[in-house]
Amino acid sequence: MNVIVHGRTQPCRTVTFDRARNALLLIEQRLLPHEFKIVAMKNFRETADAIRDMIVRGAGAIGATAAYGLAQGALAFHGRDLPKFRRHVEAVYQTLKAARPTAVDPVNAMNDVRTAMRTGQTVEEQQLLALAAAEEFANENVRHCEEIGRHGAKLIRNGMKILTHCNAGWLAFVDVGTATAPMYAAQAQGKKFHVFCDETRPRSQGATLTAWELAQQKISHQVIADNAAGHLMQRGEVDLVIVGSDRTLGRTGEVANKIGTYTKAVLARRHGIPFYAAIPLSTIDWNLKRGFDVPIEERCESEVLGAWGMESSPKSKARLGGVSGEAWVRSPKSGKRVYVRVANPTSGARNPGFDVTPPDLITGIITPVGIFKPGELWAQRRKLSFAD
Amino acid sequence: MNVIVHGRTQPCRTVTFDRARNALLLIEQRLLPHEFKIVAMKNFRETADAIRDMIVRGAGAIGATAAYGLAQGALAFHGRDLPKFRRHVEAVYQTLKAARPTAVDPVNAMNDVRTAMRTGQTVEEQQLLALAAAEEFANENVRHCEEIGRHGAKLIRNGMKILTHCNAGWLAFVDVGTATAPMYAAQAQGKKFHVFCDETRPRSQGATLTAWELAQQKISHQVIADNAAGHLMQRGEVDLVIVGSDRTLGRTGEVANKIGTYTKAVLARRHGIPFYAAIPLSTIDWNLKRGFDVPIEERCESEVLGAWGMESSPKSKARLGGVSGEAWVRSPKSGKRVYVRVANPTSGARNPGFDVTPPDLITGIITPVGIFKPGELWAQRRKLSFAD
Repeated sequence: MNVIVHGRTQPCRTVTFDRARNALLLIEQRLLPHEFKIVAMKNFRETADAIRDMIVRGAGAIGATAAYGLAQGALAFHGRDLPKFRRHVEAVYQTLKAARPTAVDPVNAMNDVRTAMRTGQTVEEQQLLALAAAEEFANENVRHCEEIGRHGAKLIRNGMKILTHCNAGWLAFVDVGTATAPMYAAQAQGKKFHVFCDETRPRSQGATLTAWELAQQKISHQVIADNAAGHLMQRGEVDLVIVGSDRTLGRTGEVANKIGTYTKAVLARRHGIPFYAAIPLSTIDWNLKRGFDVPIEERCESEVLGAWGMESSPKSKARLGGVSGEAWVRSPKSGKRVYVRVANPTSGARNPGFDVTPPDLITGIITPVGIFKPGELWAQRRKLSFAD
Repeated sequence: MNVIVHGRTQPCRTVTFDRARNALLLIEQRLLPHEFKIVAMKNFRETADAIRDMIVRGAGAIGATAAYGLAQGALAFHGRDLPKFRRHVEAVYQTLKAARPTAVDPVNAMNDVRTAMRTGQTVEEQQLLALAAAEEFANENVRHCEEIGRHGAKLIRNGMKILTHCNAGWLAFVDVGTATAPMYAAQAQGKKFHVFCDETRPRSQGATLTAWELAQQKISHQVIADNAAGHLMQRGEVDLVIVGSDRTLGRTGEVANKIGTYTKAVLARRHGIPFYAAIPLSTIDWNLKRGFDVPIEERCESEVLGAWGMESSPKSKARLGGVSGEAWVRSPKSGKRVYVRVANPTSGARNPGFDVTPPDLITGIITPVGIFKPGELWAQRRKLSFAD
């Protein structure tokens, strides 16, 4: 999608491979939304560090980063000794895998690359196959998101007000994103609409990442407190809810996603507002039998008890509607990014990271191969698995 | 209620009159929860400033402050000239009224004081009557909250987990509070329970004020993101919801309260969890015919786009359960209170301050004269008005 740098709109992916330098170019996502910067990972170790240190985050984005990282490592090998090359590639694989040991996407992505490269007869052939497979993985990720956009855009009509929660945007993928994909596609079709971004406490990915994305894309939007969606629905100001999914249960149609998603689904149901989850196929879990068994990570208390932000004056200008918006190429000289403790200093917190939305609250699930009722996923499992 | 200062638990009201010094003692609420400090307003002008600058806030607390302020102003008059005294009192009244021009509580409270003092025949008599009336206003505020506590405590059983939203605690009144009153009463009866405090973005009064209150009172509690309540209810971790009310419609039983209250009511209904509003009688509006007509203040965008807090390390210790908790008498030397911009700097926000919860979602309304179904308020209007 686009980024606005020095007033100029440029296309950008979260992950790009620079073949001439054998370097991986990543958006330094930890600086967003206050600063936009592309950083180059010059070898596979730096790429592993980028995954571990969350310079890049989001299922699709870390999958592609790991795939490219494996190719990058393979390309750095000098010589023709195939057994030695294989040992080298195995070491690269393990280094990248260890960067986010619980994530499945890097492993799946690297397995794709490894399978493809094994058909090569020489080191050089395998190197080229690895890079081609990594490129294909990244491109397929983009194509899937574009397909989600193509299907989901049909739900968006001119003048609609759309609510989204957290960030299931292109920053979490290679490009386009999932929950945002229908918006970008609808915009390309010339439709006009407005997006409310739940700030999505405690980590505020809606206020930071989704709002940043929509500003770059010049889509009309406003940030709201997570508390405000119910009131806006009551007053008829929300026509459609689209969220992402961290795990979708293929057997039941339940959607596990960022904490607060369930609340929005309950509110949407009360107001008869359509509620959709846009999902990449890789998040479908065909095994788990009930949403109650999805492990809900209890995260650090400090996320709830405080906030990260750029020290500034509350009077600093903010534009209503947010249709304009140049990315800050450098942070303002006055500001520095700090953590502030908001809550009473002697109180503790509970911080569940995710919740599970049951199928009775979900109008439809937008996938790359079409929109389905949650209860239809299991019957469509061949189509949904094959496409992946 | 209590405050813990230098390890010692002391009783404290938000507003106390020091007759010897003709000074009003207020908790400097803008410093909470990071610093606890009592400040003395040495004349009625300082008292008006304290109301205007929100050193004291909350309907009941500013009502009592204005009542005391009027008495304080009257007591400062020297001489026996009754017409001159009346003109002086009128000037004091106007100064205090102008401090928060849209608030009704200061006006109602001062009218009580003025009516009482007019029965006096001399300046001195009127001065003493003014002070007695102000004391009575404050004490009645406390008694009403205690009665809310007495009725509401019946709803709390041992081992319960209670959710509350925003701050309808003693800091908003002279003492005891409304939503918190049943908790304090139940604690006094020896009941054990746990409270989840919604942080209540964007102004975070739950994380700051309610959590501080409960810590001082040594009531087991945890702060949660506003997004987390739905998940906790789903997992059976919430047994009861008690909130306050900024305006209760006597004709319909609708409750206007801090933004996000409605969401909690919708969630409670889905899970069959009792949802109560604890209300001071002064918030009942007997005129308005429908909640849709309650004016919903659109507040400053910067509240949503950032957060106020004490600069600190996210690693700083926080105790789970929060049953301990000494107020920080001084802020930690390392910290300073700052505003941080969290959201994308080129995005704007919507910030409705309140929402309206319809009667079908409200199990009961806890008043000083008993607990009623929302639909019963109108039939009980004589009882509810007379008591006030």
